[in-house]
Amino acid sequence: MTASITQLAAARAARTSYRAGEVAPTSGVAHGLVQANLISVPAEWAFEVLLFAQRNPKPCPVLEVLDPGAYESTLAPGSDLRTDIPAYRIWRDGELTEEVTDASAAWEEHPDLVSFLIGCSFTFEAGLADAEIPIRHQELGRNVPMYRTSRPCAPAGRLRGDMVVSMRPIPADRVADAVRISGRYPAVHGAPVHVGDPASLGIADLAAPEFGDPPEVRDGEVPVFWACGVTPQAAIMDSCPPFALTHAPGHMFITDVRDTEYLA
Amino acid sequence: MTASITQLAAARAARTSYRAGEVAPTSGVAHGLVQANLISVPAEWAFEVLLFAQRNPKPCPVLEVLDPGAYESTLAPGSDLRTDIPAYRIWRDGELTEEVTDASAAWEEHPDLVSFLIGCSFTFEAGLADAEIPIRHQELGRNVPMYRTSRPCAPAGRLRGDMVVSMRPIPADRVADAVRISGRYPAVHGAPVHVGDPASLGIADLAAPEFGDPPEVRDGEVPVFWACGVTPQAAIMDSCPPFALTHAPGHMFITDVRDTEYLA
Repeated sequence: MTASITQLAAARAARTSYRAGEVAPTSGVAHGLVQANLISVPAEWAFEVLLFAQRNPKPCPVLEVLDPGAYESTLAPGSDLRTDIPAYRIWRDGELTEEVTDASAAWEEHPDLVSFLIGCSFTFEAGLADAEIPIRHQELGRNVPMYRTSRPCAPAGRLRGDMVVSMRPIPADRVADAVRISGRYPAVHGAPVHVGDPASLGIADLAAPEFGDPPEVRDGEVPVFWACGVTPQAAIMDSCPPFALTHAPGHMFITDVRDTEYLA
Repeated sequence: MTASITQLAAARAARTSYRAGEVAPTSGVAHGLVQANLISVPAEWAFEVLLFAQRNPKPCPVLEVLDPGAYESTLAPGSDLRTDIPAYRIWRDGELTEEVTDASAAWEEHPDLVSFLIGCSFTFEAGLADAEIPIRHQELGRNVPMYRTSRPCAPAGRLRGDMVVSMRPIPADRVADAVRISGRYPAVHGAPVHVGDPASLGIADLAAPEFGDPPEVRDGEVPVFWACGVTPQAAIMDSCPPFALTHAPGHMFITDVRDTEYLA
């Protein structure tokens, strides 16, 4: 099933506004279309990033790898990965050095960047919403909370790091539905990696996520954790490549592709 | 579900006999365990092979990528990819120059080889056999027939080539079952890419496969085509990397992993 004219219009309007400088989390934008995490590295690091993704498919499901130096995604014809994401992060030697709304200068500095688009759990939120499962961060107009866990990813060459997860509080009687619905989308993280008990993931304080905004967990709700495409950013912090460009957490690349394209 | 002691014994006995020099197609060996295609390339070509696989997941589902210079697969502890496959092919500048039963000399020549294990349709043959769908090449003690098609793969850097398919003649009243059963294994090629009508795949003569043995298609049977892990070998022929090592078609690497591990 291809995207409807209405959906495509919403996706293009969003990319155009981000290109013009608007900054906002993208959860809920262009309902039903796939959203993606971005990581761009110099060509010399590309094999290790792709290998890291291959060895850690749950947090790093690769949707597209662009050719070195290319920035128009086939998932959104006419798009420009240098400008069409609301906010970017620039990393030097593992340190976050800048957050920008336009990454053109980074591309001028590194014209050989290889860009990876990685599946995002925002993609299956449409399925959760359609099943009337509440999505708290959308209700509150916040970014989804994301946490570094104590679960190491499989290393790949110079790249290593712990898995990052996103968390959604789900009413206990809807957890099974949330598992079932998200499990139908293995290319966008699929089923949760963990339900309840943040401590066993190494998360000390649910109120203090490393990325995104603090959550609001209500009585009768269980924290449910999904593998997160911010995982490569944690690997960059730990592995210190000389340069990397990523999206800012929660500020994704919106494609023209229907989420149903990635149904298992 | 992990492999049974009987299955593991069968897998290890097979690898040991191949290590000692036995040569035979592996279809039907170690029933219920995953078999894999091998392609090993110098590190300088590894990114393009991995990218080719990422862009062509149906013919090239990656099960494992080993570190440069490594030859013990995590899918079969104690294995040695230099010796444990019944027959290997060595390619130089796109030409098949040798077929050997022991690839140790190739590894001495290129100690930085990066090895890719790619899913094989032999894996789901166990599921077909369990459903009493006849597997003709096994009945006849032959290798499965494989064909180069006219369907181009998505290129990746210097790598390009057409998709290779394997063919099994299936009774018309079992085709739907064969589709359904193989479709449950997306990591090992999954559902057929084509049912019937070889001409539209660019296959001029079903009796003359490019790889493997000629088929025997009986009255009331339909030729069913699955994407094949020999596809990277066709890409090597077309793309001419200076060196590559592969398994010989139909002569696979037998792992210790249950096929059910790869159920969708």
